[in-house]
Amino acid sequence: MPHEVKDKFKDECGVFGVFLKEPEQENDAARAAFYGLYALQHRGQESAGIAVSDGHKISLHKGMGLVTEVIKPETIKNLKGNIAIAHVRYSTTGESGIVNAQPMVFHYLQGMLGLAHNGNLTNTADLRKQLATYGSVFQTTTDTELVANLLARYSQDTLEDGLNKCLIDLKGAFALIIITEDKMIGIRDQMGIRPLCLGDYEGNYVLASETAALDTIGAKFIRDIKPGEIVIIDQEGLRSSQVVKSPRCAHCVFEYIYFARPDSTLDGINVYQARRELGKQLARESDIDVDLVIPVPDSGTAAALGYAEEAGLPFQDGLMKNRYVGRTFIQPTQKMRELSVRLKLNAVNKIVAGKRLVMVDDSIVRGTTSKQIVQMLREAGAKEVHMAVSSPPTSYPCYYGIDTSRREELIASKMEVEEIRQFIGADSLYYLSREGMFQALGGNSEKYCDACFSGLYPVGTES
Amino acid sequence: MPHEVKDKFKDECGVFGVFLKEPEQENDAARAAFYGLYALQHRGQESAGIAVSDGHKISLHKGMGLVTEVIKPETIKNLKGNIAIAHVRYSTTGESGIVNAQPMVFHYLQGMLGLAHNGNLTNTADLRKQLATYGSVFQTTTDTELVANLLARYSQDTLEDGLNKCLIDLKGAFALIIITEDKMIGIRDQMGIRPLCLGDYEGNYVLASETAALDTIGAKFIRDIKPGEIVIIDQEGLRSSQVVKSPRCAHCVFEYIYFARPDSTLDGINVYQARRELGKQLARESDIDVDLVIPVPDSGTAAALGYAEEAGLPFQDGLMKNRYVGRTFIQPTQKMRELSVRLKLNAVNKIVAGKRLVMVDDSIVRGTTSKQIVQMLREAGAKEVHMAVSSPPTSYPCYYGIDTSRREELIASKMEVEEIRQFIGADSLYYLSREGMFQALGGNSEKYCDACFSGLYPVGTES
Amino acid sequence: MPHEVKDKFKDECGVFGVFLKEPEQENDAARAAFYGLYALQHRGQESAGIAVSDGHKISLHKGMGLVTEVIKPETIKNLKGNIAIAHVRYSTTGESGIVNAQPMVFHYLQGMLGLAHNGNLTNTADLRKQLATYGSVFQTTTDTELVANLLARYSQDTLEDGLNKCLIDLKGAFALIIITEDKMIGIRDQMGIRPLCLGDYEGNYVLASETAALDTIGAKFIRDIKPGEIVIIDQEGLRSSQVVKSPRCAHCVFEYIYFARPDSTLDGINVYQARRELGKQLARESDIDVDLVIPVPDSGTAAALGYAEEAGLPFQDGLMKNRYVGRTFIQPTQKMRELSVRLKLNAVNKIVAGKRLVMVDDSIVRGTTSKQIVQMLREAGAKEVHMAVSSPPTSYPCYYGIDTSRREELIASKMEVEEIRQFIGADSLYYLSREGMFQALGGNSEKYCDACFSGLYPVGTES
Amino acid sequence: MPHEVKDKFKDECGVFGVFLKEPEQENDAARAAFYGLYALQHRGQESAGIAVSDGHKISLHKGMGLVTEVIKPETIKNLKGNIAIAHVRYSTTGESGIVNAQPMVFHYLQGMLGLAHNGNLTNTADLRKQLATYGSVFQTTTDTELVANLLARYSQDTLEDGLNKCLIDLKGAFALIIITEDKMIGIRDQMGIRPLCLGDYEGNYVLASETAALDTIGAKFIRDIKPGEIVIIDQEGLRSSQVVKSPRCAHCVFEYIYFARPDSTLDGINVYQARRELGKQLARESDIDVDLVIPVPDSGTAAALGYAEEAGLPFQDGLMKNRYVGRTFIQPTQKMRELSVRLKLNAVNKIVAGKRLVMVDDSIVRGTTSKQIVQMLREAGAKEVHMAVSSPPTSYPCYYGIDTSRREELIASKMEVEEIRQFIGADSLYYLSREGMFQALGGNSEKYCDACFSGLYPVGTES
Repeated sequence: MPHEVKDKFKDECGVFGVFLKEPEQENDAARAAFYGLYALQHRGQESAGIAVSDGHKISLHKGMGLVTEVIKPETIKNLKGNIAIAHVRYSTTGESGIVNAQPMVFHYLQGMLGLAHNGNLTNTADLRKQLATYGSVFQTTTDTELVANLLARYSQDTLEDGLNKCLIDLKGAFALIIITEDKMIGIRDQMGIRPLCLGDYEGNYVLASETAALDTIGAKFIRDIKPGEIVIIDQEGLRSSQVVKSPRCAHCVFEYIYFARPDSTLDGINVYQARRELGKQLARESDIDVDLVIPVPDSGTAAALGYAEEAGLPFQDGLMKNRYVGRTFIQPTQKMRELSVRLKLNAVNKIVAGKRLVMVDDSIVRGTTSKQIVQMLREAGAKEVHMAVSSPPTSYPCYYGIDTSRREELIASKMEVEEIRQFIGADSLYYLSREGMFQALGGNSEKYCDACFSGLYPVGTES
Repeated sequence: MPHEVKDKFKDECGVFGVFLKEPEQENDAARAAFYGLYALQHRGQESAGIAVSDGHKISLHKGMGLVTEVIKPETIKNLKGNIAIAHVRYSTTGESGIVNAQPMVFHYLQGMLGLAHNGNLTNTADLRKQLATYGSVFQTTTDTELVANLLARYSQDTLEDGLNKCLIDLKGAFALIIITEDKMIGIRDQMGIRPLCLGDYEGNYVLASETAALDTIGAKFIRDIKPGEIVIIDQEGLRSSQVVKSPRCAHCVFEYIYFARPDSTLDGINVYQARRELGKQLARESDIDVDLVIPVPDSGTAAALGYAEEAGLPFQDGLMKNRYVGRTFIQPTQKMRELSVRLKLNAVNKIVAGKRLVMVDDSIVRGTTSKQIVQMLREAGAKEVHMAVSSPPTSYPCYYGIDTSRREELIASKMEVEEIRQFIGADSLYYLSREGMFQALGGNSEKYCDACFSGLYPVGTES
Repeated sequence: MPHEVKDKFKDECGVFGVFLKEPEQENDAARAAFYGLYALQHRGQESAGIAVSDGHKISLHKGMGLVTEVIKPETIKNLKGNIAIAHVRYSTTGESGIVNAQPMVFHYLQGMLGLAHNGNLTNTADLRKQLATYGSVFQTTTDTELVANLLARYSQDTLEDGLNKCLIDLKGAFALIIITEDKMIGIRDQMGIRPLCLGDYEGNYVLASETAALDTIGAKFIRDIKPGEIVIIDQEGLRSSQVVKSPRCAHCVFEYIYFARPDSTLDGINVYQARRELGKQLARESDIDVDLVIPVPDSGTAAALGYAEEAGLPFQDGLMKNRYVGRTFIQPTQKMRELSVRLKLNAVNKIVAGKRLVMVDDSIVRGTTSKQIVQMLREAGAKEVHMAVSSPPTSYPCYYGIDTSRREELIASKMEVEEIRQFIGADSLYYLSREGMFQALGGNSEKYCDACFSGLYPVGTES
Repeated sequence: MPHEVKDKFKDECGVFGVFLKEPEQENDAARAAFYGLYALQHRGQESAGIAVSDGHKISLHKGMGLVTEVIKPETIKNLKGNIAIAHVRYSTTGESGIVNAQPMVFHYLQGMLGLAHNGNLTNTADLRKQLATYGSVFQTTTDTELVANLLARYSQDTLEDGLNKCLIDLKGAFALIIITEDKMIGIRDQMGIRPLCLGDYEGNYVLASETAALDTIGAKFIRDIKPGEIVIIDQEGLRSSQVVKSPRCAHCVFEYIYFARPDSTLDGINVYQARRELGKQLARESDIDVDLVIPVPDSGTAAALGYAEEAGLPFQDGLMKNRYVGRTFIQPTQKMRELSVRLKLNAVNKIVAGKRLVMVDDSIVRGTTSKQIVQMLREAGAKEVHMAVSSPPTSYPCYYGIDTSRREELIASKMEVEEIRQFIGADSLYYLSREGMFQALGGNSEKYCDACFSGLYPVGTES
């Protein structure tokens, strides 16, 4: 997609699971999984899939594309059973393909396993080598297949022993939902880097990456899965174990800044309100004299509203988004320079002409889009264009399940703020401070992983 | 699409045209047409097409689906020539199909014709019968084929004479772009019901339904095509004729209220600012005592911002939109009642809980969606939910190119405001008055067609 | 399809029609049309379509591809009515596309018309110009649209008058099946160049290009439609008119030699037996001393069997066909020279090694395939390779609905037999004589059009 | 495919491999693999795939459908490397899907493995359990994945040791082609049930299920791989090992009777000539007084020619095949009884009317098709219809890679010959005797597996 405005970090996956106590009826579990997945589409647009157990075997359907492209009425009809997991995956480059799509289903000594995984392990090379030495073969390059092999090897006795042993071996970030023929299991890494929450769906348990998925199916939020916790759900109910002690939390701070849906509440903090607070704090830290605050839609909207409120400035939608943007491979003509951003955004001349304004966005990755927007605003007649960013400079890559660009592509890894300002052509440029960010998020810097800003990686960095 | 929140009027088409003076090079005309069309995608999602003339013949490509689904790099490569028109069409029900997609291309005595049409004629039955009596056959049920037949019949001498005669015969609403081997022609009905504007694309002329399409390709706005005007563009430049005298303007008021992109400026009025003004006027007319203003995204956002500003109330995004909504035919389970709206929208509990709020939307068509949203806000803890609508009640169907539902489906055609309030379950309900609407749009009620509100049809009502 | 062995003339269309007297039930008419079409697939692989009338309106479905690719169960379900026509079209090059696919359906003064056409008119330019002068527009370049326009113009009073007038105007080759809301009409050009026959399907009439289509649905052959005859079938039964007097028959001789299915009987002569007789006559005319007769499958099989029988020689399948040949665009590697023919045919070494043999085919078009086969047989060990062709040299293009290559591509238009022999590398080469051909077909040379051999065109040559 | 005439046994797979010594150039290996696969399409129409090694890694492309549907020019372009394997798989019912398509590619301790497998193991349950006990997980239900796991487990030292150990464990029928980064390996089960041959492609080695694939790419046949032989091909050349002693050959006799291409030569016997000999022997064993021999095309053609020659009777194509049969799901109307066979075959009235004839086919599976053909011939006017079958009654299922129907569907497993004759409605019915069959195939019954006729399974029967 040469012309997409993709100057953003990308989340890599969303997971959902549901365990219905009643016997299967009208594919209820698959249907609920579909709707839950639909609500998590923003977490991955490459592939989608659902696996369902009917107590005896696990059926699977997955494919490349959006949830609504992959899951059709006949798909649902074929997914019989009362326990379902579902997965969306981020659109990385071509080589990946269907072989790496999830959920994955395996036969092992005790029966069948279905896995859906969000995150990234940091000790895969070691684990892979160790398993291969014992004779394992791998058909994919995913962490998920590795977890399944590990689990099979450790579950010669009981699955629960196997899960506990696995959790000791797995390093990195993961929110996992696993099903067997008759159980659903949720696991979160010992620092809780990736989110996972538990809900009540008319007396049944559901698991999801974000609370917005609970809301979509009308389920009530119960609680977040704790760092290092394993919950096992079956006809007896839910039991929890915590074989590894969590040294500290390290919730991904970028979920609040950009990834998660604004209507989700993760580990106790509502995303929309977090963004407003980040915007307010940004206003307090910035020293810009302007007439107008405009957001870069949609990522900067909440922060811009907070900024405007705190700064006592008018807020207007000076940039409009084309709501029907799809993938295109048509090359622009010579005449259409700097076109790509215009396919997504357009400046509203009547709003910005003659104005001194500050545009607010959540982050700057490579800087090219910001540069194009600044230029577009100037062409539309803006007298001054300032930029305020509701997070610190993103200088370090993520190893925990986020597709940051490579380090050399991160503009903040090679330029000072003043250089970035010159590059994007703004009259001034303010980033939120780390301290300000944590303050807006409740004040406790120890709760979060902010390695992409600080380079302080909580659990190793193997990719 | 059983579960789409489609409780909105639908525009029926968007048109775009470009005439490049230089000889064809790297499919510049087709490329520009593609990008222009892309910017007009909101005006129609059923089909898309581009027709290009190379001076000798007209090549055509069209198909069912979104612009990016229909137009591929190889499509562009095959569309050789320097004059292009493009068309998007609204997704009506199944029977339509590719046969009615546009543009349409015809061979006639003088050569070839390509037509792209937005609007609806009101005297088609008469024209059709008259043409058939002379031996015409029709392969579609479109107005466009009818216009082509009429034009062919009238153009035994010159095309310009034929165009003038045509314009005398055609009743109703239309914005037409026509190409021959070496000309591009723009025509607007004599009351200017549907929009059409002219731009300068590096010294070349472009025509488009909305200025946002000009912005997308980097063209400069020149002026709107006048009601009843014909512009003919060829290597000599542009010449205009006005064979029918326009009795008065009747610009579609709903383009400002809902259809057009906020970043477009139609007949001198910016759409976003119009919506803000409608919101401000609505605040002046409403008598609601609340803590918070929230929009129904995205249709109510601009009006809600205007409302909040005028009322001096805080504005927050209390309803969040799922940005990845696609068509789905999966039926919800019994447990998921009232689900459909949740697929698109979700209330942010932390924002609305405990609040007295007013939600602002642009219109209410059948009322079912508004009812679901009110209920969702109450479930999220809102103490009071009021609703304010930035236009008058929509009681009458449109015959000029808009898909309103049938009259009996329009809630305002069978209920008083108080009954509607009870139906949607709001604490109070305010509609903008007709007078207020015109005042917000500049004060001159004579400039607009507001038949969907008033039943005052400016040019007849045959469908 | 670079590597297809396409060294054959190609038929351009097949038509089928059915009129059921009982009211529509379970889509009987559409189903019968599907099966009839399926039996005529060899007459065209580019597109397929079915149009059905339910007494009030005509529904249409058509698409690019084979019959089984275009017609699906849901297609059939949507084609309601008791009168159906169907059409397959030959795969010509890319530019054609869906716009030229058939049947075509038109609205005209009296109602609706559906047309399916096999053949080629020779006065289209004149007719087109004449119609355009009166104001007709054309959306395709097909003869079919032209016939519809002519018919509409002539049918201001009754359709039957219109048909009669049409038949006076139309020059060239055509087998037409037309439906209105309540009638089915079959027409054959005045020399009967293209075939069309009538059958009895459990008391109902069917029309088809070949009797094999009747057999497939279990219908009984009644008779061939006569040259210049119009049959009109409705609830009253069948009535025939013959407004133009047929000067003489000119049945396409190539239908017997190659196009038609061997199990069809056209105008009284069974195709398989005709081919055997051609082979026998060829044996009588050839002077070749060999051990073995082998066919070029499948086109030469019947003639080779006749040849072997007449010559008292053993017959063996020395060349085997790959039954699963599909379109491929993969280019062969440098090592695979002369590969293309091997994808379709392979010599059976154990049969041909050490043998003096004659290979029999129905015709030679460009000669390149024959050359490759001769070489392949020699490489497989054949001691002598002779070739015998069961028709005369094809030196002239067809203007009556057959895709011969252009004249300069026909090897026999530029080389003498001895030169062709040298080109293909055979030890000897025999063509059947014109006299021999007519003798094998019953002796009456006046019954046939053999313009592709003789250049004697019975009705003009405009393309 | 409800209406396919599928009254035949089905082969399950075809395999092909090529090892080019020169470095990769223009995707030569992938191209050769494509063409080889194309020649083996009759061995499987469900899925197709190619895996290619470039010395460092193995790339894979596979999909559902015919070779030409799955492999496109861009596929070939992406398959870089000088070593390739390819696979076609038979179209079994829906549940299979892409997950079971081949080749399969695995990462293991020593690197990568690609496998293509034709056949069926008979000790899979034991092997699977044994592997699972050591911790293996399985993503498919294929033998191929099992072989890969076994090989990985056994190849901790060298691959060659691993292969030898594998061959000791694997029971049943298999022709395997395996590639590593730099080797190609061919393996055939110890009785040589499934075929595998070696060829010389301009100085490079190729492996294929049938010699017809060698012919297609212009390779020369070298020899068949011996039962129980492993050949390892790399830059050093070819080395062979034979770790298991072959107790006796058990070549699948049905390859000669029906499966293999007539132009292939398997283990020294040409398939076409074998079929002729079977037909001749059948004539010697039958006692039928008729005027004419006709084949059931294409399966009975060679045997019918042999029969006619031996019996001194005329041979004619009294049944014609529709060459364009594709999958269809259209249900026939009530009027079209016994339709299904007519979609594929049609009797030529002019040939069969008034004749006493014998129709020759290779086998009868369920008998329903034969019954329909006999009836069709009688309706076409045949005076007597006898049937002769060029193999013994098929009474037992195959466990070695052939899809026979289940035993209860095999008509010969529940009826005597006379009952079958009555069922199909023939005047008389002759099957070839087992002794006659072996005599026609060279006289040595010990060389073949004829379990489907005799129930004498050479190596166990687990499915």
